[in-house]
Amino acid sequence: MSLYSEINEQPERIKSLLVSQKRTVEQVAAAIHKHDIQYVFLAARGTSDNAGRYANYLLGAFNGLPLALATPSLFTYYKRPPKLKNALVIGISQSGQSPDIVSVLVEGRRQNCLTLAITNEPESSLTQAADFVLDIQAGDEKAVAATKTYTTELMSVAMLSAIVNGNKKYWKELEKVSGWMKSVLKQNDFIAQSAQRYRYMDQTIVLGRGFNYATAFEWALKLKELTYVKAEPYSSADFAHGPIAMIENGFPIMAVAPKGKVFDSMYQMLKRLREEFSAELVVISNDKKALALAQMPLTIPADVPEWLSPLVSILPAQLFAYHLTLAKGYNAENPRSIHKVTKTK
Amino acid sequence: MSLYSEINEQPERIKSLLVSQKRTVEQVAAAIHKHDIQYVFLAARGTSDNAGRYANYLLGAFNGLPLALATPSLFTYYKRPPKLKNALVIGISQSGQSPDIVSVLVEGRRQNCLTLAITNEPESSLTQAADFVLDIQAGDEKAVAATKTYTTELMSVAMLSAIVNGNKKYWKELEKVSGWMKSVLKQNDFIAQSAQRYRYMDQTIVLGRGFNYATAFEWALKLKELTYVKAEPYSSADFAHGPIAMIENGFPIMAVAPKGKVFDSMYQMLKRLREEFSAELVVISNDKKALALAQMPLTIPADVPEWLSPLVSILPAQLFAYHLTLAKGYNAENPRSIHKVTKTK
Repeated sequence: MSLYSEINEQPERIKSLLVSQKRTVEQVAAAIHKHDIQYVFLAARGTSDNAGRYANYLLGAFNGLPLALATPSLFTYYKRPPKLKNALVIGISQSGQSPDIVSVLVEGRRQNCLTLAITNEPESSLTQAADFVLDIQAGDEKAVAATKTYTTELMSVAMLSAIVNGNKKYWKELEKVSGWMKSVLKQNDFIAQSAQRYRYMDQTIVLGRGFNYATAFEWALKLKELTYVKAEPYSSADFAHGPIAMIENGFPIMAVAPKGKVFDSMYQMLKRLREEFSAELVVISNDKKALALAQMPLTIPADVPEWLSPLVSILPAQLFAYHLTLAKGYNAENPRSIHKVTKTK
Repeated sequence: MSLYSEINEQPERIKSLLVSQKRTVEQVAAAIHKHDIQYVFLAARGTSDNAGRYANYLLGAFNGLPLALATPSLFTYYKRPPKLKNALVIGISQSGQSPDIVSVLVEGRRQNCLTLAITNEPESSLTQAADFVLDIQAGDEKAVAATKTYTTELMSVAMLSAIVNGNKKYWKELEKVSGWMKSVLKQNDFIAQSAQRYRYMDQTIVLGRGFNYATAFEWALKLKELTYVKAEPYSSADFAHGPIAMIENGFPIMAVAPKGKVFDSMYQMLKRLREEFSAELVVISNDKKALALAQMPLTIPADVPEWLSPLVSILPAQLFAYHLTLAKGYNAENPRSIHKVTKTK
């Protein structure tokens, strides 16, 4: 039962991280202000890559920093790393061990860039190449599918972005995340029961946009890893540029559509999917209109601000993937074909 | 029959583009050398986004330029565009009309960045915000699914990268692309016949890495748009970090694995998929070992260099998608639910 208990640990982990890593985050923020950082160059794989997607929007919106996601093969196989002048180089990895992610940080240091490791293993190869280490302090994660290391990675990014921005209201909002998470976890029994309906679903599309583009990717990854459902994530805009063609009547769609700046764009797409394609909708939201469209509405608290909604909205998605795994009779602790640490070059 | 004839037009379009746009490309390259460009910020959607993925590897490997893919919603919905100091801002759009892509170029100009539009419509909104315009001169593309505008976008990027690099051997290699394309198109009858085998395939995974990460995305997009097959693209490394769990015995996998620096990594994954999962493999390659693993081997010429292989390897993929569309009895000219020009914000 590691997966289930790790999902339930998240409110406490988030809460203590906010206290224990504040000083380190302030030091990183000071270094960012001191250097002439013009953009962020970020390397990650799998779940950590989804935390990188969150950073892409948040560091852009709050800190004016463009973000380039690294293409690790340029560093490993091609041995032609780009010039990283004035970049902040970030590596995110739960284990701190994947050679391709480590190689990006090593190259960043070689080029005299400011380097930052975000990891659950502060004594790993990744941190040896880093000027600063944000230790996500998620504790031992036993289940192969990452849950608490994802939300603590998101929290680390959110803390950094809030401190670099400087507006104190953001920190106050961070202090509420743990409570919002707790209230969402109360839906566990409802989700366990509702997930039965999807026992024979074998494919789905997961939609999210803006800050929750990351949530769509992470929800889809949990479904793939745990339930073996072919789940493909999209922004609602990319989805309209072609892939919508494959949708047939009754096709199941998962969507993360909390209130915020991109809500209308998501809502219009969901309405179209419902009306034009009779799509089956599983919707995570705090907007009544969006929830009313869904056969399976998953509610998050009304007062969650959009920038923090990825930290809260991934919890019902994790529970949904967990209970669907059980409904399908699969092993939630050790999915077939994958291992906790994947070492790719 | 627009789609089929547009696929077959590609060798000629590529050949004339190389001559007609050389001077413009030289001017853009001179401007890049003159400015202190530290990274590229690129906005695109759909097929053009896949051309952006090619640019990500090529501008990195040949020109040392990191590339950030824009998150257009930061410009449109959030109205918090990042600071683009020292960025070359590129917009790629066949129609030059999608408001979100235009808004990124407009903001780039407002911030005094060097701006470049790559488009088939040199008189569109996109070009009004651009210092330079690379006209891909693909001619009128009537089929909804883009083919010749994709390869002419790739060619424009390849020409720019070769000139910025300065090594004349690259230009000589560009002059051979048209001939390689022509020879690949001769496999049309073989592909038409072999595609029958996939008449009832309803989902697949498409693998590619490095330069051909773009090819995997574009092949998957053609399959989704035309054949309505749920096709999800991955790099072989990302695939190993979780999604491989969903693969069952006999699952169909498409792969682009030409000779080159990432070949071994791709080959090891294909071998594993064949041996461990009895996967069904459709493989585009010029390596005999890789082709021997496939139930459906699609050959490209032996002497295509890796950096230009995306321009050649997408052609059998387009033909495969086209013939599978016919085999499934669908409309290859006007797929359901999508239109030639998609205007997203």
